[in-house]
Amino acid sequence: MFKGALPGFRDFYPQELAERAFIMKTWRTVARRYAFVEYDGPPLEPLDLYTKKSGEEIVGQLYNFVDKGGRDVALRPEMTPTVARMVAARANTLRKPVRWFSVPQLFRYERQQKGRLREHYQLNVDIFGSPDVAADAELVACAVDMMRAFQLTSSDVVVRVSDRRLLQAYLASLAVPDDALPGVFAVIDKLDRTPGEVSAEKLAALGLSADAVARIVDIASATLADVQARVAGTPAAAHADEFQRYLAYAAALLGGDASWLRLDLSIVRGLAYYTGIVFELFDRSGEFRAICGGGRYDTLLQSLGGTDLPALGFGMGDVVLGELLRSKGLMLPEQSVADLWLAADESLPLEQVMLEAARQRAGGLSVEYSLRSQSMSKQKKAAQASGARDFVTLSNDDVQNG
Amino acid sequence: MFKGALPGFRDFYPQELAERAFIMKTWRTVARRYAFVEYDGPPLEPLDLYTKKSGEEIVGQLYNFVDKGGRDVALRPEMTPTVARMVAARANTLRKPVRWFSVPQLFRYERQQKGRLREHYQLNVDIFGSPDVAADAELVACAVDMMRAFQLTSSDVVVRVSDRRLLQAYLASLAVPDDALPGVFAVIDKLDRTPGEVSAEKLAALGLSADAVARIVDIASATLADVQARVAGTPAAAHADEFQRYLAYAAALLGGDASWLRLDLSIVRGLAYYTGIVFELFDRSGEFRAICGGGRYDTLLQSLGGTDLPALGFGMGDVVLGELLRSKGLMLPEQSVADLWLAADESLPLEQVMLEAARQRAGGLSVEYSLRSQSMSKQKKAAQASGARDFVTLSNDDVQNG
Repeated sequence: MFKGALPGFRDFYPQELAERAFIMKTWRTVARRYAFVEYDGPPLEPLDLYTKKSGEEIVGQLYNFVDKGGRDVALRPEMTPTVARMVAARANTLRKPVRWFSVPQLFRYERQQKGRLREHYQLNVDIFGSPDVAADAELVACAVDMMRAFQLTSSDVVVRVSDRRLLQAYLASLAVPDDALPGVFAVIDKLDRTPGEVSAEKLAALGLSADAVARIVDIASATLADVQARVAGTPAAAHADEFQRYLAYAAALLGGDASWLRLDLSIVRGLAYYTGIVFELFDRSGEFRAICGGGRYDTLLQSLGGTDLPALGFGMGDVVLGELLRSKGLMLPEQSVADLWLAADESLPLEQVMLEAARQRAGGLSVEYSLRSQSMSKQKKAAQASGARDFVTLSNDDVQNG
Repeated sequence: MFKGALPGFRDFYPQELAERAFIMKTWRTVARRYAFVEYDGPPLEPLDLYTKKSGEEIVGQLYNFVDKGGRDVALRPEMTPTVARMVAARANTLRKPVRWFSVPQLFRYERQQKGRLREHYQLNVDIFGSPDVAADAELVACAVDMMRAFQLTSSDVVVRVSDRRLLQAYLASLAVPDDALPGVFAVIDKLDRTPGEVSAEKLAALGLSADAVARIVDIASATLADVQARVAGTPAAAHADEFQRYLAYAAALLGGDASWLRLDLSIVRGLAYYTGIVFELFDRSGEFRAICGGGRYDTLLQSLGGTDLPALGFGMGDVVLGELLRSKGLMLPEQSVADLWLAADESLPLEQVMLEAARQRAGGLSVEYSLRSQSMSKQKKAAQASGARDFVTLSNDDVQNG
């Protein structure tokens, strides 16, 4: 007897499927408004597509195996390598900028915890061929407009934005030596899950000054003005100006609303390949994991052996988003119920009901009826249980009168 | 450098994705008209879910492996075991009849040939809890209405219907001994790919009479009247009457059109678990493999250890259907182009274009614009290349006048 799905995998009964469809429909609607077009790739890919990008250590988290043709393959853990491969293969013929999105199911073999299963669906939105921060603004505005389409507001969700280059310049202004950077990044990445004194101790142990330690522990509060003041006169001043332009663009794309985004240099993002602006969307209550994350990865296509094409993108999974929507009463799937339940006198041949069902269905209605002759009270009960929007009774007279 | 997908797997660039979306949208529209509701299961399942149904020999065609938790797992090669498992788990609470559909991607490791890849998408439509042929008619009408929704007619496609019980009774009336049945089934299954003399020789070798051999070689032409004449007075006469009722129901559900279905006792269907009416949809030209196949499998849920619930269903893949639609000029995907391309005087700040894009997007339009300042001629060229439906130029005056 087979009771359920594998651990970490979901069965989508009609109710869960309707919720998934609600999320995906909203994603697609907003992505199209931003003129992104949908693509997809295979859920199974050559293993080295992932090890080449992320190193051998990723294999421990993959559903990988050797297929019957002796190929090392893996269920896709993320979409970026696939889309990079697809864009690189047609880099010369694709219209630039390439504005693509997809909604793949992704797979990771990892310890299960809240908001983490072994599979999830992840919206991926990417732009290839646009070096300017205008593209970064377009991308983050699209992510925010998805929140709005789910009826979430900037009181519910915040976009924390950082820029690896600004962060590095800020740290340089605090006289953090280059060889301490990896250690400092690691501390910053864990700041919001670590007591301040612990972070301070670790930073001091890296040889940083008391002032540097204090500022880094509090780095999430650093404003753009703070950063601009500290990097004035250095080459990084241009990055700060660009960042300011980015914020202005994003506000314009959100109809003049600047309330969603804030600079937060504590956003490091685990993935090593980001080269510019990075961002994450969080619920303001801090109850959930990141809803969405992304940024610019200008060197990835080159490093995967493809062409040199600037790139940026974000991913938004269905699991955390679904938890957030449910917690706010905003999970609003369409009900899958018939438009019409067609009942009939028991004396009426079933063919007559079927002919009427055919007529209504040809007109576009969704129609259910009893698949055998039944008493009227049973038919009414069945119709009620089905939740059908309308109940129509067919009698001998109707049929005789057409 | 990663050039392409694994052999037998498809990359869905926007054009191919649009074709897939066209097929799936049509499937969903018609399935809903028939009051089927969508569900889904995991693409990865325990291996024994498949071996229990199909025997160990199926493993040779599966993408199976041992996961990092030591579980024998497989990428789903078909949906029926998953849906049987899901229905059995909630057999007591689900409203009957259960009318479900899904559109899973399925995986088989097999030799590639025309119309056969290593993955495909397959519409699955099933009814659980309805023992009468009315349900069989409902199911086949749904499959035919999908053909109609694709603008295919009964001149393009035929539904060949059989019934294992009728076939067995017909063979019994020809004095075919029970122990010859497996051999006879095997010959019948290959009739349309085998020269008549070869089939006749094989049947004669099984000890059949000359009359029986002649009738079996020509079994595809046997009409219901032929069968009824031969089984009159036997218990199988009731099956023949039921079959007649089924045909009448199917015609009614197709608005009185009886031209799609014909009895064809040569349809055996490889799967061993069918218990009643089975059917396959073919293009009349005979150019392609079966477009769709299904039937009644009343004992499967019981044999998988679940509850005793009559069941029937069909599967329709996207590959053969896509080939047929393309050959008829009926693959008509929606074009993924923007509604509006927004151009602007070079002197206008990009923020102004973005504010206007935001306004139009908030109104539901899909909007693209240049992600950097560009000459008007370059913007026009880009807009043309994009195929956008409309092109609007924003000037300084527009902005000053709001």
